[in-house]
Amino acid sequence: MAQDNATAEVLEPRDDDAYALDSRTVSAILDAVEAQDSARLQELMEPFHAADIADLLEQVDDDDRRALIALMGDEFDGDILSELAEGVREDVIAALAPQVLSQAVLELESDDVVDLIEDLEEPTQETILEILEASDRVAVEQALSLPEYSAGRLMQREVVMAPEHWSVGEAIDYMRAHDDLPEQFYHIVLVDPRLRPVGQTTLGKIMSSRREVKLADIVEESFRTFRVDEEEGDVAYAFNQYHLISAPVTDGEGRLVGVITIDDAMIVLQEENEEDIRRLAGIGVESLNDRTLTIVRQRFPWLFVNLITAILASLVIAQFEETIGAIVALAVLMPIVASMGGNAGTQSLTVAVRSLATRDLTGSNAIRVLRREIVAGLVNGCVFAILMGIIGFLWFGTPMLGAVIATAMVINLVIAGLAGILIPLTLDKVGVDPALASGVFVTTVTDVMGFFVFLGLAGIFLI
Amino acid sequence: MAQDNATAEVLEPRDDDAYALDSRTVSAILDAVEAQDSARLQELMEPFHAADIADLLEQVDDDDRRALIALMGDEFDGDILSELAEGVREDVIAALAPQVLSQAVLELESDDVVDLIEDLEEPTQETILEILEASDRVAVEQALSLPEYSAGRLMQREVVMAPEHWSVGEAIDYMRAHDDLPEQFYHIVLVDPRLRPVGQTTLGKIMSSRREVKLADIVEESFRTFRVDEEEGDVAYAFNQYHLISAPVTDGEGRLVGVITIDDAMIVLQEENEEDIRRLAGIGVESLNDRTLTIVRQRFPWLFVNLITAILASLVIAQFEETIGAIVALAVLMPIVASMGGNAGTQSLTVAVRSLATRDLTGSNAIRVLRREIVAGLVNGCVFAILMGIIGFLWFGTPMLGAVIATAMVINLVIAGLAGILIPLTLDKVGVDPALASGVFVTTVTDVMGFFVFLGLAGIFLI
Repeated sequence: MAQDNATAEVLEPRDDDAYALDSRTVSAILDAVEAQDSARLQELMEPFHAADIADLLEQVDDDDRRALIALMGDEFDGDILSELAEGVREDVIAALAPQVLSQAVLELESDDVVDLIEDLEEPTQETILEILEASDRVAVEQALSLPEYSAGRLMQREVVMAPEHWSVGEAIDYMRAHDDLPEQFYHIVLVDPRLRPVGQTTLGKIMSSRREVKLADIVEESFRTFRVDEEEGDVAYAFNQYHLISAPVTDGEGRLVGVITIDDAMIVLQEENEEDIRRLAGIGVESLNDRTLTIVRQRFPWLFVNLITAILASLVIAQFEETIGAIVALAVLMPIVASMGGNAGTQSLTVAVRSLATRDLTGSNAIRVLRREIVAGLVNGCVFAILMGIIGFLWFGTPMLGAVIATAMVINLVIAGLAGILIPLTLDKVGVDPALASGVFVTTVTDVMGFFVFLGLAGIFLI
Repeated sequence: MAQDNATAEVLEPRDDDAYALDSRTVSAILDAVEAQDSARLQELMEPFHAADIADLLEQVDDDDRRALIALMGDEFDGDILSELAEGVREDVIAALAPQVLSQAVLELESDDVVDLIEDLEEPTQETILEILEASDRVAVEQALSLPEYSAGRLMQREVVMAPEHWSVGEAIDYMRAHDDLPEQFYHIVLVDPRLRPVGQTTLGKIMSSRREVKLADIVEESFRTFRVDEEEGDVAYAFNQYHLISAPVTDGEGRLVGVITIDDAMIVLQEENEEDIRRLAGIGVESLNDRTLTIVRQRFPWLFVNLITAILASLVIAQFEETIGAIVALAVLMPIVASMGGNAGTQSLTVAVRSLATRDLTGSNAIRVLRREIVAGLVNGCVFAILMGIIGFLWFGTPMLGAVIATAMVINLVIAGLAGILIPLTLDKVGVDPALASGVFVTTVTDVMGFFVFLGLAGIFLI
């Protein structure tokens, strides 16, 4: 029954999702663990998806995690391992009894095993590879020999394909005769005699076409293939841009070797966003599960770079020690100019970094965007200059001080707009991730220029 | 032919994607427009997906855009409208000849029309609604009456469903007898006699099962439904967390009214990430296509809030004017303490904001995360205290000045860690988006405390 039906009635607010992992459920689970009540534990855990159980294992502390795993026994599902964050994966694997680990790993498809072990340390990798059957082990080792973050690592090797001359009837008969088809598939890939993909058709289309229709006549309009060595970020971008559901992967000779599905692309897209956000804030790939020492080490380099730039700004201030000694009000007001510049610069650079990531900022519109940022800096700069000029005058009673801070404000906001666009564009051109380094450069520019322009003007006009 | 095959050979670097919208292609297209050469234009545009053409229209300036649209004539595809960013959509619709617009709109499915017009201004909405056939118009108007950003707006109304007692054979016969099945579908939804969804089975599973097998026996393990009024953000989260491909949507009585597919969820997920990134940087939903005045207005409030907080920090400094007058070196060094605190605070708050967004930070682990941040602030604080203490001493030759800046550094980095976690957690608790407001609060705290602790200690120990 195909239906086209709708409701616009006002609905009652919804109960809390029964499957949500709320603190009450977590406490109940930990109580069951404490009481060593495995029947109660099983009852509490029953409604949860492997992804939720993985979240639970990430949220509890080390001792509770080990006790929980011990009490779960062989109820521990292989999928939980796949869903775990890297930070706790090693710990969980170490905590599993050998036969539970074996059973969990053997449940997984070979591409899930690749995901599972690619970031593990050597000895843990070995332990898991030894569990696998010989043929699976070879497949996993082959995948691991492909470049990290490549389409090849992302794809699943199980593909349903058909010769390009087949009809709908032939395809249906073929599928019905085979019970080793992949768990999930959405398309049949058409291949030429040399196994090169030439198109694909959806199962839905096959279902609703007559037996004698040629598969080649009902292929999808937007068809794209990826090479095994293509960057996973580019693959995810294409899935998002072209609304792909699944796409074939080819080797160096253009032969079909696997297929990537949208759920894997979605994970990559999410990871890339996460990376951008974290890099903009000067943090690495850290997660809540990292040990304190790990996050100390991860954050140190960025704080260190920031220290250098802060000292640079201080050196600029030091050039005006005499001026400040004469008018202490300058010391009071100077952070305002620097801070406004830093904020305006961060706004511009975030727009630039994201537009580069989504490929909206290109050679074709860079000049126009830059012009827009300069004008925006000028307009907002003038508004804040007037505001701050008045405040400066009222606060310290010196009209000239108001004029100096107003002028410095306009100049620094224009510089912020310029630096916020030019710095990410330049970094991108020279092959450095603009999300990673733009922030430091932009705020250095706005700090240094903010102090220099404000104190410099003060030195000229107020002394 | 199901195959399991791989290649690990080293591949030649790949040619640039022939479909990419590079600046050379954009120039060639603009040349063709200038020359009014519509044959050449068609040839150049032929390989492009509607999403790419939309990108092109976004990147060129207003005059070029109008000229391009005019030259495209009735080659203008309806999908291009759906792919356009909001900023230029109105302009493009206004530039289209009436018969081209009609044809483009009539090509779209009703849920695409909803996406297309929901953010347009009233008169443009009217123009498009009038083009639609009566039945489509009703469907679109019904959808528009549902809350914005709800599952109901996201779903498509075309669903393939079957009674729960049907067998594989019955389902196949039904599908083969109907040629009005949706363009894309991946599941058959099983419903009870009151049209409530009870499970779903994939087309792949149906294809590979015998005719007499009951659909109910081959349903997917992870099955989730959404209510029409559920937030689209929650829907996207569930798709990502549970790796869903499509899921039924129900009305207030639990009846099936539509289905959401992963590609729509992926778009929402992407939008939510984008929003988080932009809010962290204090910018709104602006895009590269907004007019200068729009971005000036969008950025102003955040800069204004920043001005207030900067003035707050200045008021703190003003309390120590005498101290600074006595030792001008304090004015030189004080921005370093504030800046390091601001950076460390931003690192902590970004981790907290993202962990809240991905639901990794919960009541169960908040205390542990907080403790970790305090220790991390303490450790990095001590390292930078020693560094900065030495620099301060060498620079100004006063050991006590080194000691004061070192102490202030430790204290401010610990405060940064605390504020970076507690502020987002509190905002989240009271229902404010932590991405939106955390940054301002955290840097205010680190600025104010940085200046206060440093100058206060200096006033006590150096005067």
